[in-house]
Amino acid sequence: MITSIGYAATAARAPLAPFNFERREPGEHDVLIEALFCGVCHSDLHAANNDWGSARYPLVPGHEIVGKVVKVGSAVTRFKVGDHAGIGCLIDSCRECSPCQQGDEHFCERGPTGTYGGYERGTRIPTYGGYSNNYVVAERFALKIPQNMDLAATAPLLCAGITTYSPLRHWKVGPGQRVGVVGLGGLGHMGLKIARALGAEVVLFSSSESKREDGLRLGASDVVISRDADQMKAQTGRFDFILDTVSAEHDINAYLRLLKNDGTLCLVGLPEKPTLFSARSVVFGRKSLAGSFIGGLRETQEMLDFCAQHGIVSDIEMIQIQQINEAYARLEKADVKYRFVIDLASLKR
Amino acid sequence: MITSIGYAATAARAPLAPFNFERREPGEHDVLIEALFCGVCHSDLHAANNDWGSARYPLVPGHEIVGKVVKVGSAVTRFKVGDHAGIGCLIDSCRECSPCQQGDEHFCERGPTGTYGGYERGTRIPTYGGYSNNYVVAERFALKIPQNMDLAATAPLLCAGITTYSPLRHWKVGPGQRVGVVGLGGLGHMGLKIARALGAEVVLFSSSESKREDGLRLGASDVVISRDADQMKAQTGRFDFILDTVSAEHDINAYLRLLKNDGTLCLVGLPEKPTLFSARSVVFGRKSLAGSFIGGLRETQEMLDFCAQHGIVSDIEMIQIQQINEAYARLEKADVKYRFVIDLASLKR
Repeated sequence: MITSIGYAATAARAPLAPFNFERREPGEHDVLIEALFCGVCHSDLHAANNDWGSARYPLVPGHEIVGKVVKVGSAVTRFKVGDHAGIGCLIDSCRECSPCQQGDEHFCERGPTGTYGGYERGTRIPTYGGYSNNYVVAERFALKIPQNMDLAATAPLLCAGITTYSPLRHWKVGPGQRVGVVGLGGLGHMGLKIARALGAEVVLFSSSESKREDGLRLGASDVVISRDADQMKAQTGRFDFILDTVSAEHDINAYLRLLKNDGTLCLVGLPEKPTLFSARSVVFGRKSLAGSFIGGLRETQEMLDFCAQHGIVSDIEMIQIQQINEAYARLEKADVKYRFVIDLASLKR
Repeated sequence: MITSIGYAATAARAPLAPFNFERREPGEHDVLIEALFCGVCHSDLHAANNDWGSARYPLVPGHEIVGKVVKVGSAVTRFKVGDHAGIGCLIDSCRECSPCQQGDEHFCERGPTGTYGGYERGTRIPTYGGYSNNYVVAERFALKIPQNMDLAATAPLLCAGITTYSPLRHWKVGPGQRVGVVGLGGLGHMGLKIARALGAEVVLFSSSESKREDGLRLGASDVVISRDADQMKAQTGRFDFILDTVSAEHDINAYLRLLKNDGTLCLVGLPEKPTLFSARSVVFGRKSLAGSFIGGLRETQEMLDFCAQHGIVSDIEMIQIQQINEAYARLEKADVKYRFVIDLASLKR
C-alpha cells in the first residue's frame, strides 16, 4: 500500500483537516500520479457538507487534479514516468455498455465511479480525491496534459472546462452564432473563453455590473445586467444558444425569451429547488431547455487539446492546502476569480 | 363582396349563433374556396371564450378547413376551379423574412396572420374562420388535398396533424426508436398514427385505463397508465422522444425521467399555468425539454402527402353546425373521439 496524506472532512460542515490514509499499489493498467495541483470545485463544498445526502466520511474532495506520473503498471501504454497527467470527475465505469465503448463514460448505463466520496468499482476501497499528494487510476481514466500548459491553471479544466466545453460542442456553437453565458464564476468564465475560441459572438449575463470589465476581458463582446428589465428585453429573440451556469434560483423563462427560433438554453448548474417553467417559453419558436453534465474521457481529452491550441486555461487564485477552509468560506460567497487551485506542495509543510 | 354565412361568438361564453357577413372578392393571387368541412380545435373554444385575451367579436372560429375551389384569381397557378383545397392555422405572413422564404411562415419574424379573430394583413378587414360557407385566401396559403382522401376526416390534419407531424419530423422520429405520446385526444391520436407510420415503436401514456383499447388500435404497441407509479417507473430511461399533447397541469419531470440520454420531451399542449421544473431532470443525461407549434405551409403540404401515402386521417365525429355549442360543452370534458368535424352543408338548413 502507498502511504498518502490529504485533507478530509470528517463530518458535514466540519473544517477540513489533515488525514493520513493508504492507496492501493497500481495494477498493471494503472498509473500512480503525484498530485501537484487540484482545483476547488463548488461540488467539493456540497459533497463535504453532505448537501446531496450521499457523503461518506472521512471525505477527501477534489476532482480537478494535475500531476506527474511516478509509476506505471506493466501494461500501461499511454503514459510513462515523468509525463504530466490529469484526473477529472470520473475514475471508472463499467467499460462495457454502449456509452462507455463510445468514450461517453459519464453516461455509463451502470453508473460511472466518481473520483471521491465512494468506493472503487466492485470493492469496498474508499475513493479519496485530489486534496492529497497522489492518486492511483487506470490509465484509461487519466488525461494527457498537452505540452507547455500552466499546470496549476489547467487543473480546473478537468471539471469546469469540460462541463462548459461539452455542451458548447454538442450544440455546435461556432462562427456566425450569438451565444450567451449566464453567470461569471468558475463555469461561466470558462464558458466565455471556450465559446469565444469556438468563433461565436459571446454575451455575458450577470446580475452584477461589477462583472462587466472581467466579462469583456474574458471574451464577451457585451455584458447584459440581468436585473435590468430593459437590457434583458433588448436581447429578446437574439441568441442561438445560451449556456446557463447559475446554481442559485433564477427565472429560466427570462432566458428562453432571448432565444431565436430553434435556440437552446442549456443548464449546467443545479439549483437546489425546482423552478417555474412555462410551456409557452418553448412552444412558440420551437425552443429547447436542455442540460449537460461534465463529459466523457474522449471529449475531456479533446477539450484539453483544444484549450492548449487556443491558449486557454482557467483564471485562478492559488492557495495553500492550509487555506482550504477559508477558501470554502469565500466560495460560498462566490468570492473567487475564478477558481481556487491548491498548490499541493503545501501538503509537505 | 361575397355574401357569406357562418356561426359566430358575439361575446366570451356566449353561444355561437348564425352570423351573416361579407368576404372580399379574390384578388389575382387568391382562391375562393367553398368550405365543405371544418374541424373543431380546442383553440377555437379558447378563442371564442377569450381565454387568451385577444378575441375580437363577432368571432367566427375554425382553422381546419377543407373545401372546393370555386373561383381563382388571374395569376393563380396551383389551383383550378373544382380542386379540393385546405386552409390551416395561417392565412398570411410577411412573406419576406428568412423563415417565410423557407416556407416556415409560422416563424414569420413579423408574426403570421391567423385564420380567424384578427384582421387581414395590413388592413382592417376582419378574418372570419371556417365555421362558414367559404373562405378567400392567397393560393400560397392554401393546401392541396391529395386525391382520394376522406375530406371530412382530412380537415383535422390541418391543425392537429401538422402540430404533431412537425415535431416528430423535426426530431427525426423513425425506425428503431421508442417514442411516447402523452394524452389521447385530438393531438394525441394523430401523434400515435403519425409516429407509427414513421416507423417508431409507439407507447401511449394516458391517465385513464379506458384509453387502452383505442391506444392500441391507433398505433401504440403499449399503453402506460400515467397515474400508476410502478408502471411509470418501469419505463425509466427507455424513450428516445416523447410527444406531450396534454394541456392540463401535469408533472413534466415524470416524463423527462423516462427519456434515454440525449432524449427529448416535446410539448405541444399549452397548460395555462407554469409548472415546476427541476434542472436535474435534464442535466443528468443531457436531455431536452422542447416545444413545437403548428408548422409552415411547406411542411403542412408534406404532412398531407405523407398522410395520403400512409392512409392516415383523423378519427372524427361529424356534427351539424347547429350542434356546435353542444360539441363545445363535450370538448371541455374531452368527450370526443377524437375530433369533431362540422359538415358545413348544414349551414344551408
